[in-house]
Amino acid sequence: MNYTQLVNLIKQRKSFLCVGLDPDPKLVEVDKILDFNKRIIDLTSEWSVAYKPNIAFYEHLGPKGWTILEETRNYIGSSHFTIADAKRGDIGNTSNFYAKTFFDTYNFDSITLSPYMGEDSIKPFLDYPDKWSIVLALTSNSGSLDFQVPQLYKRVLERSKSWGTKDNMMWVIGATRSELLHEVRQIIPDHFLLVPGVGSQGGSLEEVCRWGMNSNCGLLVNSSRGIIYSDNPDLEAKKIQQEMQNWLEAFAII
Amino acid sequence: MNYTQLVNLIKQRKSFLCVGLDPDPKLVEVDKILDFNKRIIDLTSEWSVAYKPNIAFYEHLGPKGWTILEETRNYIGSSHFTIADAKRGDIGNTSNFYAKTFFDTYNFDSITLSPYMGEDSIKPFLDYPDKWSIVLALTSNSGSLDFQVPQLYKRVLERSKSWGTKDNMMWVIGATRSELLHEVRQIIPDHFLLVPGVGSQGGSLEEVCRWGMNSNCGLLVNSSRGIIYSDNPDLEAKKIQQEMQNWLEAFAII
Repeated sequence: MNYTQLVNLIKQRKSFLCVGLDPDPKLVEVDKILDFNKRIIDLTSEWSVAYKPNIAFYEHLGPKGWTILEETRNYIGSSHFTIADAKRGDIGNTSNFYAKTFFDTYNFDSITLSPYMGEDSIKPFLDYPDKWSIVLALTSNSGSLDFQVPQLYKRVLERSKSWGTKDNMMWVIGATRSELLHEVRQIIPDHFLLVPGVGSQGGSLEEVCRWGMNSNCGLLVNSSRGIIYSDNPDLEAKKIQQEMQNWLEAFAII
Repeated sequence: MNYTQLVNLIKQRKSFLCVGLDPDPKLVEVDKILDFNKRIIDLTSEWSVAYKPNIAFYEHLGPKGWTILEETRNYIGSSHFTIADAKRGDIGNTSNFYAKTFFDTYNFDSITLSPYMGEDSIKPFLDYPDKWSIVLALTSNSGSLDFQVPQLYKRVLERSKSWGTKDNMMWVIGATRSELLHEVRQIIPDHFLLVPGVGSQGGSLEEVCRWGMNSNCGLLVNSSRGIIYSDNPDLEAKKIQQEMQNWLEAFAII
């Protein structure tokens, strides 16, 4: 999926909601994970534009976890933008194989990547047409305070923005750091951001939109636990979509 | 495997060689990877103390890649220290599942981790007794110049050394950065280092030993392509072991 198609999808669906498919084995029996995911997809597809399985929740199941991941990916089809939340990154020769894994073997549109090892760890992912690299910049967890702030996330944005274009790069900016979104947008005004941390992690959708939205929306906002473990995932997703629609109208995007 | 056991293994085997099991599908047919790995293990076990499969080389094969990884891990048994070269790291809740994957599901002694997301992304791995977290500090690739130097790798060492102890933490320090090993040892004199980049990446074993060795050796030096694609992996491993033995004797460790 390319940039124009993603923007059009957001306009059509009046939403920039990404649903995180992170099945916790304490809450979902292993044999029921695929059905659980399918139900969540059925209930939320109208209100969302993207799905993001976090690979950790599949990998620990051994080979069958990867079969569940593949079947989940196939069930989503091409109606939504797909994100492999894998946070990979290795020397160039090795990153080639991670790119092959998620772009060829599992056919995701995008993957999250750690920038720690620099340009040659990201470049192999950028060689795939219409596939996206989503680089960690400012994450939503407490550990983001250890190294990312006050300077490193800005160096990551400034340096890495030259590695690709707005058609194949996004960055992860946690909703819990929305006070820094203004600075982020000074460095990368046009790119998409993947924003986790709304909902159970405490980030505010209002703050994210106020400081992070651009003229093509430029946001994919993720909610995982707040939707998938709700009694009514469809109502929860719809509620978020309606707030998103208000913001899209306020910015005259739709 | 704990610290004392690892030091004793090095003394007994007169080696601190780690062999990287990274089967490139351009060089090894997929159906022959397990046999390839078993042959390398058979030929090098006498001269090495550790094996390090890089997970990227298995993951791209889909579920069967994970079966090959598991069978390779089981074939190594408990005679060597095992390293899952996975470079994982995520928010705490998610890192729990990565720790479960590599320490429970696949029973590795250790895993390589990216420090970008900070303490809560590493802590879940440190909760496992006799398991090790090997944190990226100064990597061997060209991209290490983008963010790690001149300051970040030192901040990573200084801050992360308080997260665990010398019994459950190591750091990756590339052999291609041996001119910085003196500074590394000023910050972490006692810990083990995992050193990739000797051989095909151009690092020097002599420089690594001269500046990185401590009174308990404190080094695991990895070679992947230089051994596994050699015509005589046993002779290649033995040659490195003999150079290592000289250094262990020079430092009066054996």
